[in-house]
Amino acid sequence: MDVVVQKYGGSSVGSLDKIKRVAERIKKRKESGAKLVVVVSAMGNTTNELISLAYGLSDNPRPRELDVLLSTGEQVSIALLSIALNEIGCKARSFTGHQIGLMTEGFHTKSKIYDIDASVVNKELDRDNVVIVAGFQGINTNNEITTLGRGGSDTTAVALAAKLGAVCEIYTDVDGIYTIDPELYPSARKLEYISYEEMMEMASLGADVMHPRSIEIGHKYSVPIYVAVNTGESPGTYIKESDEIMEETVITGLAVDNNDAMVTVNEFPYTVNSVSELFKSLAERHINVDMISQTTPVGDRISVSYTIPRNDLAPALECLESLKTRIGPFTIETNTDIAKLSVVGMGMKTQSGVAARLFSVLAENNIKVKIITTSEIRISCTIDPKDQSKAVSAIAEEFDL
Amino acid sequence: MDVVVQKYGGSSVGSLDKIKRVAERIKKRKESGAKLVVVVSAMGNTTNELISLAYGLSDNPRPRELDVLLSTGEQVSIALLSIALNEIGCKARSFTGHQIGLMTEGFHTKSKIYDIDASVVNKELDRDNVVIVAGFQGINTNNEITTLGRGGSDTTAVALAAKLGAVCEIYTDVDGIYTIDPELYPSARKLEYISYEEMMEMASLGADVMHPRSIEIGHKYSVPIYVAVNTGESPGTYIKESDEIMEETVITGLAVDNNDAMVTVNEFPYTVNSVSELFKSLAERHINVDMISQTTPVGDRISVSYTIPRNDLAPALECLESLKTRIGPFTIETNTDIAKLSVVGMGMKTQSGVAARLFSVLAENNIKVKIITTSEIRISCTIDPKDQSKAVSAIAEEFDL
Repeated sequence: MDVVVQKYGGSSVGSLDKIKRVAERIKKRKESGAKLVVVVSAMGNTTNELISLAYGLSDNPRPRELDVLLSTGEQVSIALLSIALNEIGCKARSFTGHQIGLMTEGFHTKSKIYDIDASVVNKELDRDNVVIVAGFQGINTNNEITTLGRGGSDTTAVALAAKLGAVCEIYTDVDGIYTIDPELYPSARKLEYISYEEMMEMASLGADVMHPRSIEIGHKYSVPIYVAVNTGESPGTYIKESDEIMEETVITGLAVDNNDAMVTVNEFPYTVNSVSELFKSLAERHINVDMISQTTPVGDRISVSYTIPRNDLAPALECLESLKTRIGPFTIETNTDIAKLSVVGMGMKTQSGVAARLFSVLAENNIKVKIITTSEIRISCTIDPKDQSKAVSAIAEEFDL
Repeated sequence: MDVVVQKYGGSSVGSLDKIKRVAERIKKRKESGAKLVVVVSAMGNTTNELISLAYGLSDNPRPRELDVLLSTGEQVSIALLSIALNEIGCKARSFTGHQIGLMTEGFHTKSKIYDIDASVVNKELDRDNVVIVAGFQGINTNNEITTLGRGGSDTTAVALAAKLGAVCEIYTDVDGIYTIDPELYPSARKLEYISYEEMMEMASLGADVMHPRSIEIGHKYSVPIYVAVNTGESPGTYIKESDEIMEETVITGLAVDNNDAMVTVNEFPYTVNSVSELFKSLAERHINVDMISQTTPVGDRISVSYTIPRNDLAPALECLESLKTRIGPFTIETNTDIAKLSVVGMGMKTQSGVAARLFSVLAENNIKVKIITTSEIRISCTIDPKDQSKAVSAIAEEFDL
């Protein structure tokens, strides 16, 4: 009998009524013959409420204790869903991360899964129980409660599916993966299929449906993932190996990210080490640099532009000030008003001229591009946010998104 | 260095401000030189809110899942208290029941502690940490989360103190043990000392400060217990061995219980087995019979009166109806309007005439007594609730309470 791991996010279990509806769906699926493992997130806004309790006591709560606190959110959900299932005659038992032996390593509040004890889950499945598992949480080798950080419940679900040789179904409040976020471009198409690689790029680039970590695990262990709306009203999107997807489009999707800031250093001393010093100092502060563009040196001076998460702007500027004391003076320009557009598609690997088509479209619409970066299956560029909607429409039409 | 186990109840940690105040008190105590283990309950009304969520899904939620649900309340408290302590520079780490190896046996939602792994707590104390422990919860041999039922956090605290050879301090929103509940008799005296035996009787009889189970463990392992108000504003009450209490009073306290109902069966067939059949059928339904009084048989008929928790009246009447089919007809009278008064005192063991003094006082005040039961250190009787306040005052004056 096939094992299916389902995951229901916080909005899917945000109230008792919603929990009852999810329970009915699980029961029906069970009766259709599947062995079910169900991963749930904390109800609705619970996690944020718990975080604000912690910050009501300390500006810097201990991560170890935050994990003890936050993991209660999922524990409430698993108990309630299990109660709802048993109430309608569907045998279910709930398990915390610790109870299914979900072992983690790394730091509190952003731990990584390194193993799951499949025997607990398999024993329950053999007893014909639906196994309800708390997402987002685990335990480390010191027997301390840990959490997996953003997208943690997706990661739990995909990792469990990998361990159990199961398929993974992610139920959420959006009904699949679109070529473009429908809020930005209402006539965007829903994708029937997307490859792990494309989905990972899309997720990293601001398409918020799933966290890139979970896709990465799915890719590594070839877990078939299906993303669909929690009401089951419409078909969702399959994420799978690219070679299983027959017809490759050039561009599968367009992602827009409005959370970056751009920093430009002008009159920057150009020595053998100066640019690497710059990025090393940012890395030491754990600031993630995304796009980088550097001008040809003029004399012993160059300009370097790069983008970082807007939230990291203050520490990034501190880095630059302390860098001045080491390598000499330069000027700093910041721009928090940028939009990053990225087009993603496996087809780029084999079809040439995609970049040319993209930049022609933008030029025809008088849209100025500031920084450009590319990977094998992606082209990203930053533009002025006032041009964003025009750019999205133009690219969508050009590439039939 | 002395180890102290402190317990703070739900009202003591009912808000972030209260948690901060408790943290300040713990820090001061730590700085005065104690090694501290702190047991906390769920914040304020959390447990009831969680219960009502469960009952919003099912009239009969699975006890196993209720335990998963309810144990989150204490887990939130330990994390928050630990965050508050670290914030003010007092090193603290939180532990769930499972993490300190608090092993239980028996049924979900009313499990009993059978062991605690003291090594985890001792290791943390050796590292100079305040050890924050979730009350009310443990884990059974199947690795399932369990809870300890009413008064569970007191039980956790006293059991930990027993295991660690520590003293146990119970902080609550009342400031000690009184001879009589001050709400019933405002001029009641606060006791400096009370024996385990007396406290156990008082607790069983409706004096709600501590649960009898925790006193029982304290008595068994001779754990010194101190009950005081969580603000530390006034001295509390010590619970200890009776032979350590120098001056014994005849009557230490008076407890009033208004939660019982009285059932009288009249014209009850009087055979060798009929009365035992009656009480066996109640026991099978887990209905706790408290006071019993039986008249002398008239012919082959007798009358039997007994008290039970008022909440159990409906199933108790079902028992009687089904008994009629087995032993023949009788009539049933119920009275939900009764008050049970109990006077408790170790002095009764050695001083005679206490019962006579008690019933004289009641008679002088024209108060009719319905059922009477006695133990070595207690006399209980039921009266009409309209006489309750007159009876309490008269007894208090007679025995100087």
